[in-house]
Amino acid sequence: MNAINISEKFKLFNELWTPKKIGELNGQQLLLAKLKGEFIWHTHENEDELFFILKGTLEIEFRDKIVELREGELLIIPKGVEHKPIAKEEVHVLLFEPLAIKHTGNVISNLTVETFESI
Amino acid sequence: MNAINISEKFKLFNELWTPKKIGELNGQQLLLAKLKGEFIWHTHENEDELFFILKGTLEIEFRDKIVELREGELLIIPKGVEHKPIAKEEVHVLLFEPLAIKHTGNVISNLTVETFESI
Repeated sequence: MNAINISEKFKLFNELWTPKKIGELNGQQLLLAKLKGEFIWHTHENEDELFFILKGTLEIEFRDKIVELREGELLIIPKGVEHKPIAKEEVHVLLFEPLAIKHTGNVISNLTVETFESI
Repeated sequence: MNAINISEKFKLFNELWTPKKIGELNGQQLLLAKLKGEFIWHTHENEDELFFILKGTLEIEFRDKIVELREGELLIIPKGVEHKPIAKEEVHVLLFEPLAIKHTGNVISNLTVETFESI
């Protein structure tokens, strides 16, 4: 049981749209990701999803609006709500999600990662 | 579904050791707390607990060691592990825990809050 330093963890990887696992608790996982560019439209049918912005500005597009998230802001996206993250510049996020989740939700694409690497 | 600004939420309360709820997802809750001084020794028998330090330095005392957590660091305390948080100066933390948790765990004290207020 050791302190996890978020900045140090972000130095360990550079891949975009590829969440890395830094911890598990209560059937949930804590992930870090670097985002840049546009992700795909997708929905998580059974899982709510939390985005907490640690660096940069992330836009999350919904079918009826766009929510802009700046550093120090977070958003909880309820299950079943289709969304598409867009990062005009590189964004660092912390994600909190159930262990079973796929980050591309209901869509399997070349961005889909089957198992998140632990760092 | 709106962005939650953590700094703005911290301006809404000043009580110490009294977590405020800012969101729920997947049967879990996201809490903010201001801590200063010593909390009580306690254990969560059924819930792992996450402390993420947003300001200040928090010491968490265990029966066999002390873990120091600085801003930008987090710690996951597995269920069943007795612990005691100590904040020499005011500390702001984000907590992530199951909805059913009591922050004083197995101990009922005058610090125990039955239901966390939503802000």
